[in-house]
Amino acid sequence: MIKANDPNRRSWINVESGSDFPIQNIPFGVFIPEDDIITIGTRIGDTAVDLSAMQQLGYFDEINLDEDVFLQDTLNDFIALGREINRDVRDRIAEVFDADNAELRDNDEHKAKILFPVNEVQMLMPVFCQDYTDFYSSREHATNVGTMFRDPNNALLPNWLHLPVGYHGRSSTIVISGEPVHRPKGQRMPPNADKPVFGPSVRVDFELEMAFITGEGKPMGQSISTAEAEEYIFGMVLFNDWSARDLQKWEYVPLGPFLAKNFGSSISPWVVTMDALEPYRVAGPVQEPEVLDYLKFEGDKNYDINLEVGIAPEGSTETTVCKSNFKHMYWNMVQQLTHHTVNGCKVNAGDMMASGTISGPTPDSYGSMLELSWNATKSMKMADGSERTFIEDNDTVIMRGYCDNGKVRIGFGEVSSKLLPAID
Amino acid sequence: MIKANDPNRRSWINVESGSDFPIQNIPFGVFIPEDDIITIGTRIGDTAVDLSAMQQLGYFDEINLDEDVFLQDTLNDFIALGREINRDVRDRIAEVFDADNAELRDNDEHKAKILFPVNEVQMLMPVFCQDYTDFYSSREHATNVGTMFRDPNNALLPNWLHLPVGYHGRSSTIVISGEPVHRPKGQRMPPNADKPVFGPSVRVDFELEMAFITGEGKPMGQSISTAEAEEYIFGMVLFNDWSARDLQKWEYVPLGPFLAKNFGSSISPWVVTMDALEPYRVAGPVQEPEVLDYLKFEGDKNYDINLEVGIAPEGSTETTVCKSNFKHMYWNMVQQLTHHTVNGCKVNAGDMMASGTISGPTPDSYGSMLELSWNATKSMKMADGSERTFIEDNDTVIMRGYCDNGKVRIGFGEVSSKLLPAID
Repeated sequence: MIKANDPNRRSWINVESGSDFPIQNIPFGVFIPEDDIITIGTRIGDTAVDLSAMQQLGYFDEINLDEDVFLQDTLNDFIALGREINRDVRDRIAEVFDADNAELRDNDEHKAKILFPVNEVQMLMPVFCQDYTDFYSSREHATNVGTMFRDPNNALLPNWLHLPVGYHGRSSTIVISGEPVHRPKGQRMPPNADKPVFGPSVRVDFELEMAFITGEGKPMGQSISTAEAEEYIFGMVLFNDWSARDLQKWEYVPLGPFLAKNFGSSISPWVVTMDALEPYRVAGPVQEPEVLDYLKFEGDKNYDINLEVGIAPEGSTETTVCKSNFKHMYWNMVQQLTHHTVNGCKVNAGDMMASGTISGPTPDSYGSMLELSWNATKSMKMADGSERTFIEDNDTVIMRGYCDNGKVRIGFGEVSSKLLPAID
Repeated sequence: MIKANDPNRRSWINVESGSDFPIQNIPFGVFIPEDDIITIGTRIGDTAVDLSAMQQLGYFDEINLDEDVFLQDTLNDFIALGREINRDVRDRIAEVFDADNAELRDNDEHKAKILFPVNEVQMLMPVFCQDYTDFYSSREHATNVGTMFRDPNNALLPNWLHLPVGYHGRSSTIVISGEPVHRPKGQRMPPNADKPVFGPSVRVDFELEMAFITGEGKPMGQSISTAEAEEYIFGMVLFNDWSARDLQKWEYVPLGPFLAKNFGSSISPWVVTMDALEPYRVAGPVQEPEVLDYLKFEGDKNYDINLEVGIAPEGSTETTVCKSNFKHMYWNMVQQLTHHTVNGCKVNAGDMMASGTISGPTPDSYGSMLELSWNATKSMKMADGSERTFIEDNDTVIMRGYCDNGKVRIGFGEVSSKLLPAID
């Protein structure tokens, strides 16, 4: 067992029951405390932990680290150290915050420099993402979309069961939870029209996704095998891949989604490590037909992560519109990364690879309004009595995710972002 | 007239007749002289000019610049200063190297620190490109592809004449001229097969493209109009968008090209500024049907840039296989950038936006082997007697580009890259 995952460990930092951030989580993020400088940190309960301060005060002396490894404005360099060093750091954090360890617990001077109430720090983008890839790996989602827009009897395209379909997204507009996103303008072709019109999208949607963040890959030209892939995956975040369905429908043939997607994507701020998710491995769906040899793998590569999406209209309470689970994914992250690099494509530390919309088998588990409203043929009722087929201006969309095996709950917190009106 | 563009200026640096780099060009690039440090530089004739050394020696004192503006390993920060400052620097370089200016010409000590034979410096990637977009803006290319793979009578898809179709590429595998690229492995579906096979691509192609490099865009959510777009375009490079046609055909529906493209793209090292290209503006093709208002523009937005592609088999001389011209592009760069940002998409300094394959109207002007060999139904004869339908292992593909209005020739040099065999 990974040392930091010990389910029996308790911390001397208070952790409320049901918290996403017990001592067994120890995610990594980047934050700035009030009147202080940017640092890499972790979170236990509702306490943000300044790892650069910890290092300066000697708490990581037993690990061979550069002295400024945590004094960074992104996790990229830390991630690039590799999973072994990342694990050593996480294990050491678990040790320092163990209820029985007095080193820091009883040092008020140090605690004042290291610990901050999480609501008094500003979370920043955890990584600099040069390249962002979006997969399309939920069979249920691909089947729903194919059924609505093509042919219910041939909903999956011929390649879908043979390879994890994916495409490149735009990294410049990936923002952190809390940052609003503006409704995009663009071209759409109204039904029965003979020419397109221009204006704000009238079908803005969320997509419930998760993204994994890669380590430093092999040199360009080389491939990462399924046996090696886990060494190149650092951790995961919640990912809302904002989408404009009307722009998408008009623009996406033949080269794929473009303006319909690149106006914004929102992520949760704490990167939960693959180490922390280890206890929640599960088998994925059976893959039939059999995949090509390079996509075969051994062991359980899916993860049991409960997911939910809420919509909060302006000035109103939130209504849950979707409950899904990451375990439904047909193609797993190991296969995605292997496929992505089988042609020699270079992967850098901090790159993001998102899952695609995570829809489950039941209508209440569909991960987008497109599916929940079945292409606007039905609406979702909000707590304030209003109805939604797509997202309205000033709605806030909130996604949450957590694992719970009855012993320990490991969560991702949330990604929450408000859709502002289009800018004139 | 932009000061540096004076066609009558001569330099005290020798410039061979027919050079791509007369005193009127003054492109920007990044290089490292032997036993020295990385610097931003320019090129006149066959002489590389170290701009950080020039600045340290006081030659830019009249311009308000940070002292390390040229002591960078990319052009990004310099580009982000904006076109006015970029122009001041280029104008000042023209002045310093003017045949009649003795400041540097007669200072041998300074010259020893500033000037290097271009073949004694190593060129590096000129920018750090976070996001790379590839358009599909040659009507001839889109028509050829549509004719081969879909329907000659409806070769263009319905959206093509209404918007500049584009998609996101991967920036991590954009490399500089001289760097080899490995043949990619991947899945393809052989004709009449019932399942895909895996192995090295058997249809590796070049795509003759040019890319423009953007300045620092507006904040996310805001749009750049056609009237504003030129202020956000720094310059251009030659761009070979390596493509694997067999992988592409199997993977690209519905989300676009992915592994077929992201194994490598090659660029020329010197960024020719839009200022230098000013004398070569021409009108583009008439756009019919009329475009939507946001895509309308005033003035000439195309450029008359002669382009050619050669293939040099291992150990053999080069054979020219294509002569085209950038002026054929249906959608211009101003429209591309405006469309890209109309939804609020953020553009950063150093981003690349490639044109898509630049095919002309005649068969010898097609910008890819796919078109030149008309989907492998005919072959191109090489100087050594061998034939090509696609690119073979160890072939070198060379692209060149230049403008010539009878008074001044401004060129891009070349992008040359060798296709190595797939790595086992």
